[in-house]
Amino acid sequence: MLVSGLPNIRYLSGFTGSNGLMLLGQDEELLFSDPRYAEQARTQTRCRVQIVKGSLYAAAAKQVTRRRIQKLVFEQNRISYSAYSELSAHLGSAKLAPATGLVERLRMRKSDAEIRLIRGAVQIAAAAFEQAVRRVNKIRTEEQLAAELEYRMRLGGAEAPAFPTIVASAAKSALPHAQPDASAIQPNRLLLVDMGAVQSGYCSDMTRVLCPGRPTPEARRLYRAVREAQQAALDQVRAGASVRSVDRAARRVLAKHGYKRQFVHSTGHGLGLEIHEEPRIGQTSKGVLEAGMTITIEPGAYIPGFGGVRIEDTVVVKEQGCEILTPVSKELLLS
Amino acid sequence: MLVSGLPNIRYLSGFTGSNGLMLLGQDEELLFSDPRYAEQARTQTRCRVQIVKGSLYAAAAKQVTRRRIQKLVFEQNRISYSAYSELSAHLGSAKLAPATGLVERLRMRKSDAEIRLIRGAVQIAAAAFEQAVRRVNKIRTEEQLAAELEYRMRLGGAEAPAFPTIVASAAKSALPHAQPDASAIQPNRLLLVDMGAVQSGYCSDMTRVLCPGRPTPEARRLYRAVREAQQAALDQVRAGASVRSVDRAARRVLAKHGYKRQFVHSTGHGLGLEIHEEPRIGQTSKGVLEAGMTITIEPGAYIPGFGGVRIEDTVVVKEQGCEILTPVSKELLLS
Repeated sequence: MLVSGLPNIRYLSGFTGSNGLMLLGQDEELLFSDPRYAEQARTQTRCRVQIVKGSLYAAAAKQVTRRRIQKLVFEQNRISYSAYSELSAHLGSAKLAPATGLVERLRMRKSDAEIRLIRGAVQIAAAAFEQAVRRVNKIRTEEQLAAELEYRMRLGGAEAPAFPTIVASAAKSALPHAQPDASAIQPNRLLLVDMGAVQSGYCSDMTRVLCPGRPTPEARRLYRAVREAQQAALDQVRAGASVRSVDRAARRVLAKHGYKRQFVHSTGHGLGLEIHEEPRIGQTSKGVLEAGMTITIEPGAYIPGFGGVRIEDTVVVKEQGCEILTPVSKELLLS
Repeated sequence: MLVSGLPNIRYLSGFTGSNGLMLLGQDEELLFSDPRYAEQARTQTRCRVQIVKGSLYAAAAKQVTRRRIQKLVFEQNRISYSAYSELSAHLGSAKLAPATGLVERLRMRKSDAEIRLIRGAVQIAAAAFEQAVRRVNKIRTEEQLAAELEYRMRLGGAEAPAFPTIVASAAKSALPHAQPDASAIQPNRLLLVDMGAVQSGYCSDMTRVLCPGRPTPEARRLYRAVREAQQAALDQVRAGASVRSVDRAARRVLAKHGYKRQFVHSTGHGLGLEIHEEPRIGQTSKGVLEAGMTITIEPGAYIPGFGGVRIEDTVVVKEQGCEILTPVSKELLLS
């Protein structure tokens, strides 16, 4: 099998460089990279390393031909058409077989060491959030708060934000993919913060909603409904539960409160070396949860022109229930 | 032509969403996206917009078939093998023709509006650098300085860093792709900072080298050689000059000072909506510079175990010479 997805290569070998390919055989693992990573590849992995000037795909094809391999499985989602063509042109008689999600399936259940890193990434984001929120009354705009959050994650040991931090005040909080800008943080309106950290390559993800000042009754009602929905979904999480049942639990509560059509996304997703991994937890998702999966639980409801609420934790699936890693209060945070 | 590269779609249409496809015909432009971006697609672009639940590739293929198009050009570097397969399966009798770099070639020469945005991104990074450097004696580690630089870029109006900020002290400055970590910033040693900002989607890129304390004679010699090499390369930049001549000018100066083999990368690259664009300015690059290109000029020399120097500006190619956008001193910065 030829592994071309960088997170998959990192998972299998430990190699973190930005250019790599990995050939997995019956009893060998061969890592290809370029001269920039010669030393790094040898210290990070136990694979045989081949340093290549020029195309890694041509070099890998040559090794396949030399070993008289008949069939080469490749990651069809993780290779460009042009790289595929190049591989194919250099391959001789071996047959190429497209595959999807093989390594991703291995990555779903995390080891204890991986869970430790994810827990660390969760804690970095949580600490940054709590430090910044204490100062929120001194911060004027969405982008200033985003800057503050990312700065504090960095100082806390994050390599980077896990994704562009969302800070969305007032009506903007109703856009699930809002970008922070020079808009003022408005008093007495909802303020949504969605943020995560990367530590040693592993991601965290959390969302909390604040209200600087005094929330309206409608905001309180919306908040309570989402919080109840999130709890209902969390209550479903355990090894053996279908992912759809988790999504359904959140959806049912929101429908009961009249917010059925305001919940416009899915309930959660796996995370690890990537911020979005398997399993996806949505209305049409299939499969069951397994112990050791790390997932988010993040229902939300969004009222155009008014605002939105999303509450999101990172959790570990256990045989009995789940462990919530995110150590941040879920009261509507006033300040 | 089917355009699948997001920066290319943004360039052609103005659409900034994370999921899109664009079909360019003789006299129509059709943009495909998903329901999350329904409103955004219609406000950002003047294309006809088709919002699709499910696969954008299948929807685009259907439009191609309906129009009885015989030949569809696609971007072979900007499409996964699986997306290509899906497109191909839905396409009926139209022929698929792979292409590379068509839109990228249009993007090389920047408009005045684009140059304004790049200039803004350069100024954000420069201001953040100068603010942080004033405080460098109070900063203990590489990652703290990186955090400070990124924080100040954010406050200055950057959407994000253009790439992970490099802060590398002492021997680490000899690794062109070093990552900042908890290593202390060492007195009297070289300290390399490579940073950039994104503003309205457009990138900047600069590198400067400091010495907190007193540089050794060897460090001064290395610095002077790289500075002379950078100036020699800048002196070659003008419309009509071959990109290779620019690279060669830097290389010749470094060779003269005995650092020929210490210059391990190329002299520069285009930048714009992406941090690395055409043209590449290296030993084997082809082509000539054109007015309106925005490029970096960044020779360097790296001595393993001792340290490295790289000096990098973002410049605009002019009919006569070039305009250096980066407004930061190139003296070896002492503090």
